[in-house]
Order: sequence, then structure tokens, then C-alpha cells
Amino acid sequence: MSSTTRYVRAVDLTARLRSGQGDFVLFAITPPRRSTPAERLPDIARATIDRLAHLDLDGLVLYDIDDETSRNPTARPFPFSPTVDPSTYRADYLQAWHTPVIIYRAVGKYHREGLHTWIVEQDPADTVTVMVGAASSGARPAVSLADAQAMCTDLNPDLLLGGVAIPERHSRREDEHLRLLAKQEAGCRFFVTQVVYDLNAAKNLVSDYRYECEARRLDPVPIVFTFSVCGSMKTLEFLRWLGVDVPRWIENDLRHAANPLAASLEQAATTAVEIIDYCRRLDVPFGLNIESVSIRREEIEASVDLAAQLVSHLKP
Amino acid sequence: MSSTTRYVRAVDLTARLRSGQGDFVLFAITPPRRSTPAERLPDIARATIDRLAHLDLDGLVLYDIDDETSRNPTARPFPFSPTVDPSTYRADYLQAWHTPVIIYRAVGKYHREGLHTWIVEQDPADTVTVMVGAASSGARPAVSLADAQAMCTDLNPDLLLGGVAIPERHSRREDEHLRLLAKQEAGCRFFVTQVVYDLNAAKNLVSDYRYECEARRLDPVPIVFTFSVCGSMKTLEFLRWLGVDVPRWIENDLRHAANPLAASLEQAATTAVEIIDYCRRLDVPFGLNIESVSIRREEIEASVDLAAQLVSHLKP
Repeated sequence: MSSTTRYVRAVDLTARLRSGQGDFVLFAITPPRRSTPAERLPDIARATIDRLAHLDLDGLVLYDIDDETSRNPTARPFPFSPTVDPSTYRADYLQAWHTPVIIYRAVGKYHREGLHTWIVEQDPADTVTVMVGAASSGARPAVSLADAQAMCTDLNPDLLLGGVAIPERHSRREDEHLRLLAKQEAGCRFFVTQVVYDLNAAKNLVSDYRYECEARRLDPVPIVFTFSVCGSMKTLEFLRWLGVDVPRWIENDLRHAANPLAASLEQAATTAVEIIDYCRRLDVPFGLNIESVSIRREEIEASVDLAAQLVSHLKP
Repeated sequence: MSSTTRYVRAVDLTARLRSGQGDFVLFAITPPRRSTPAERLPDIARATIDRLAHLDLDGLVLYDIDDETSRNPTARPFPFSPTVDPSTYRADYLQAWHTPVIIYRAVGKYHREGLHTWIVEQDPADTVTVMVGAASSGARPAVSLADAQAMCTDLNPDLLLGGVAIPERHSRREDEHLRLLAKQEAGCRFFVTQVVYDLNAAKNLVSDYRYECEARRLDPVPIVFTFSVCGSMKTLEFLRWLGVDVPRWIENDLRHAANPLAASLEQAATTAVEIIDYCRRLDVPFGLNIESVSIRREEIEASVDLAAQLVSHLKP
């Protein structure tokens, strides 16, 4: 990539977020495990860039994985393994990547000082952050989500800050739209959902959020909907462990499909298109984010195919 | 209508049901209140026939309304008022109607003897019945649903018998597909849902039913999905009172729409098309049934428009 291309892209995503516009597509990855031999990391990063370079993506999301066993007493389907810090991984291995990067911060993992330094050091032109609270409300982290958000707006006011949106929480408590508005007041300029399988739950959240914005005379900020593929019952089990509501009919379809991965890809694309249509109808800005929940090669490749389909749907 | 047309139609719906085929469209009405002056009934029936005659319907459904206040302790949004017996109404005023008629029987209302006589008297060539159990499981009716089903199969084995299917019950208990199979074993040849607003719940039921049929090596029988329009918050409240799950986003859309009735019509048509596509994909035979939950003229007319749209979608 030439530096010109890079500059154009960079202006694009951050400018859009700054002006509250949506219509962008992100791809999310989790950095490699910390146990990965250091000499393999450049190759892994290179493979990721090669896999994604041909897509017309507007941004790359790097997740920050916390040990969430505290949030769910049942056994984690895939064992937890600490991962390389997303910011370090980006600085060391993803310099060739051509768009802004959205770096997650699981704030419960950090001490105040470390987070302070990190926030100050970020260049708002090509880094965006999403601050995520501790997974379990029982945990007592050194830095709360509210603290972390306040640090961002105080220390680096130009740094674009996002938050997470959880449609499933809305299904249970019916107040996720109010949480989003509180985060917006605390400086969040966009939201990213967890993986969406329950279309109704996502629509309910968008709808309640939109009408509450209207009542408060606020402009809705972009909601980025995350999609993934699911090629096996193990991955499905993991999605549920993560708190994703996967409707029964989707589970049945996957269980009985000749090619579950293809079925899942089609389904995710259909769901995404319905969300797009719905957001457009309600005039809520939106983005799309595609990830692979599993580390199996076929599922990663199918998630890249999904991203390609959604990019061409959104930017025909 | 000529008697030839009538004969052709009659063969069509009952033949389809007999062979387990779907792809038909019904329209459902509730007979007038018993308090209606008798001299007005011919005009009301004529107006109904005139309103529906231009649609290419395959059958007319006549509901049998029971006082369901026992099922729901909250106040009924529209007061209950006994209605003319559907079978009498049909015999006395709907002779000009050109398709078979599906007559509901709320079995909790009848004594054994009366139901016995009614079943024996029906002509299976142009009458189909749906037996409905008492609304509240606390009620102790003279005739149970199982009794009524057994009476049908014993006394008039050619009379096509259907049952109700409630996706919302499946959402809560996850066993509605097993209830359907038990009813099928008791002689039911098709099922009719209550009004569908929750697409996920309907898909979950279809999916579980279909795969359970496969496991038992049974052919799925037609499921008839009921759709309606909702033009006011009062109608929405009544739908909920009846036990229909109306997703929050649909409520919001209706509440904020410039034209709620038009929005509701579009939404119902979209939901119906998604159900059609889903059933086709799973190879489950299906029918459509359109009703007006409200007695307001605009809502009745919009439900006729919905039926017209769905007829032309299904039989282009």
C-alpha cells in the first residue's frame, strides 16, 4: 500500500466517526496467544494482512481478551489463554496495515497509571479505542469503566472513544439504550455490539435507542453490528458461553445442514442486510464488524468471505 | 359464483389438506355479536362476501369465540361479547360463499351431546374444523380437547380436523412441537397459529417441529400462519392480551409511524414472506390465514389488502 492510500483511508473512518456517520465495514481480530513463540508473530500478522488486504475495509479492530471465567460459572468451551496486548501487537507487527485501528481496552486488566500512559500516547488520527468494563459486575477492578472514559476525554480529547452495546442485555433488562446514552454522555462516539444472531433483540435495541435519542433531541451515533460465522456445535456453544443468544432455529439449521459453515455464512449475511435495511429506515447510522469467533482456518476464511459479501453489499 | 367454480375450489383446499399439501390462503372472520339485531345479519354477511369475493382465497375461517377472561387476570381491552355460532352463521347467511369453510369449535363451550350431533352432521367435502381446547388450564370443561378430537375421528373420520399452534408457548416451554405431534397423532391434519408478530418464535417452532417429524419419520402437515394488521395502540394492547408476543421494535414503529396501519401492513407482509421462504427452505407445507383482530373498518380493509398482497405473492 502507498502512504497516500493509507492517508485517504485514515481520514475516512475517523472523519466519519467524528461526524457521526456510519456506512463503514470493520474486521476484528484477536491478537495471538502470549504463548506463541515470538518468532512466529510476524508471519501470523503478515498472514492476517494478506487475508484482509483485498477487502475494501475501513478499519481493523483488535480485541483485548480478559479472562472472563468470572462472568460465567459453566466451563469455557475453549480454554482461556492470555493474548498479546493489542496495542503492542499493532505497533510491532501491523504497521503495514492501511486503515485506522480500533484498539479495545478491557479496563479491568489495567492499573490506572498504565492506562493513563497508553491513552496519552495514542495518535487520534489513526487510533480509535473501545473501552470495555469488567465482564462480571462482581469484579472490583482498579479502574472502572467510568474512570477510563473520563481519562480518555480528559487526557486525549481527540481520541475517538467507543463503547460496547449488548442487545441480549436489552432483552433481559430493557435498559441497554439508556446505558448507551449514558456512555454517549461520557464521551462515546460509537458503539460496537457483540456478535448478533438474534435479529429481534438487535432491532429492539436500535429502535429504543433511536426513539430515546429523539426524545432527548440527540443525534444517534453509529452502532457497529458484529457478525460472525459458526461452523460447528463447539463454536455455537462458545457463542452462547460468551452471552450471545442464538435462536433455536439457527441452531437446528446448523445441526442439520449438509454444510453448516455455508448455511451460517448465508444466515449471517441475511441478518446483516436486515439490520442495514432497518437502520436505514430508522435513520440510525451503522457500521458492520466481522470477526471469526473460532480460530479454525475454515471459519476464519468463511468470516473473510462474509466480510467481502458485506463490503460489496454496502459499497456496490 | 357458479356451482362449478364452487366445486373446483372445494376440491382444492380439502384435497390439499388430505394430501398434506400447503400453499393456500385463508381469511378468518369472527361472526357478529349475538346482540346484533337479526335483521342486520344478512347485510353483514353480504358485506363480508363482497369484500372478500375478489380475492382468490382457498378457504374461509370462522372463529368460535369463548369468554377467555379466565385465561388472563388483566382487563380485556375490548369487552367480551358472545358471538353468533359460526356454524349457524355459515348455514344461515354464508351459503353464497364459494370455498370450503373452516369452522372453529371452542370445545369448552359445548356439552358432549351437542358436539356429537354437530360433528356427525358436517359434510367433509366443504367443511373443515379446528378444535380448540379451553383457554385456561384451570377450567374443567364438559368435553376435553382430547375427547373432542376422538369424537371427530370416530364419528366422522373424513371430516378434516385441525388444531391450534402457539409459537409463543414454544418460546416459554419449548415443547409446542411435541404438542403438535400429539395432536397429529390424535387426528389433526393441519395447524393454525394465532397471529404471528414474533418471527423468531414462529421459526423456532417450525424448525423444532420439522426435525422432530424427521426423527419420527413422519411427514410434517401444513402449518397455517395467521397474520393481521394493527393500526392502533388499543389493538396492540388487545393482541398482547390475547397472548401474542409483539416485539418492542414493532410497537415503537407503530407508535411513531405517520401511518401506523400502513406500517403494520408492510411489516405483516414482510413477516409472512419470511415465513414462506423459511418453510420452503425446510420443506414444511404451509398456509396463510389473514384476519382482522379489530372491528374498525380501516383495520378490516387493511387486512383485506394484506390478504390480496399475500395471495398475489403466493399465486403470482
